[in-house]
Amino acid sequence: MTIERTAITRLRKKARPERAELDALLDSTRVGHFGLNDPLGRPMVIPTAVVRDGDRVLAHGSTGSPWMRALAGGAPACLAVTALDGLVVARSAFESSLHYRSAVIFGECGVVGADERESALDLITEALLPGRSGELRRPTPRELDATQVLALPIVEWSLKVSDGWPDDPPEDVAGDAWAGVVPMVTSYTTPVPAPDLRSAIALPASVRQLGQAGPVGR
Amino acid sequence: MTIERTAITRLRKKARPERAELDALLDSTRVGHFGLNDPLGRPMVIPTAVVRDGDRVLAHGSTGSPWMRALAGGAPACLAVTALDGLVVARSAFESSLHYRSAVIFGECGVVGADERESALDLITEALLPGRSGELRRPTPRELDATQVLALPIVEWSLKVSDGWPDDPPEDVAGDAWAGVVPMVTSYTTPVPAPDLRSAIALPASVRQLGQAGPVGR
Repeated sequence: MTIERTAITRLRKKARPERAELDALLDSTRVGHFGLNDPLGRPMVIPTAVVRDGDRVLAHGSTGSPWMRALAGGAPACLAVTALDGLVVARSAFESSLHYRSAVIFGECGVVGADERESALDLITEALLPGRSGELRRPTPRELDATQVLALPIVEWSLKVSDGWPDDPPEDVAGDAWAGVVPMVTSYTTPVPAPDLRSAIALPASVRQLGQAGPVGR
Repeated sequence: MTIERTAITRLRKKARPERAELDALLDSTRVGHFGLNDPLGRPMVIPTAVVRDGDRVLAHGSTGSPWMRALAGGAPACLAVTALDGLVVARSAFESSLHYRSAVIFGECGVVGADERESALDLITEALLPGRSGELRRPTPRELDATQVLALPIVEWSLKVSDGWPDDPPEDVAGDAWAGVVPMVTSYTTPVPAPDLRSAIALPASVRQLGQAGPVGR
């Protein structure tokens, strides 16, 4: 039997085949969850920062991390990137649900080569805090050597989006229960300086501008 | 070789063995990611709402869902529950990171029996929207039959928390770069009534009180 992993088996109307919608989710979400098998074949899930770079998703970590080594070695992987956007408050518990965007990408990670590693890490820094890489000293050779960057190609993927109204049957719509959506947003709050920061050092532009773009994805 | 799955192999100082801290994360987070293998042994990751019930985590879904059936059949599972709490802005890209709380629970799901299913679904409804179950009609037998509830025992687990200051070396602390933390919070915004809601139906207490408890976990 052929297993088509990217087929949406449930709630097919929520399937979104547009690559632009996938990219929008990846670009607005900070953390993804990698699924892989441990050495005994048991499932393991690892949360990590993920950043899209064109047709691939970058993840980075220590060269000493066992799961980074497993993924770098070509272990079959599944990356889930999920955004929770709100509560769907229906007229029954059965129809109540969540607004979400949920992507899975299947494949094997490649290792970003030493020549590309510094620019890939800059991309990751910029995705988490735009403008920050230009405010910092360059990474040292030792720091670069201690860091592994993985790249998962965006080839085999699916996206499911729940963004509709409650889908109550007519007998419930005729009743007295409220129905609607309560959106959720994530935002940054006031930056807190480190205890060892000298008071003469002002908040940098990257941090000042961070909250101004409005709510962020996680 | 024995594989101890719950051992924290990297950044051991972030390991948190206290069950109360695990419970706090589970109780404030709406979505978890289940890792399991597909029929060909390949890793799959499924995001779903999760709710703690004492010493187990409940998840629910359609009886028609292939992954629910696989988990209900005793497939080895790994549940990751992750909260992203902020940006750690260090004086180098290398030391910059995220504030997070990250739990993994390993095991096999049991199926919540028919006699317990309705109360388990009430717990899930209450966790997502406190007070809502009392505002709604009871589930019908047909709705209950269409819903499967799984329970993963909280036995084999680990928790890792990053909540510290940037850990910059002295030569960077002596420099001019800013360092600190930018917290992130998730909150509810204004509820939006469904288009088919009759205007005489007021916002219920559950939704009115939702935002008043302050920021929420995802």
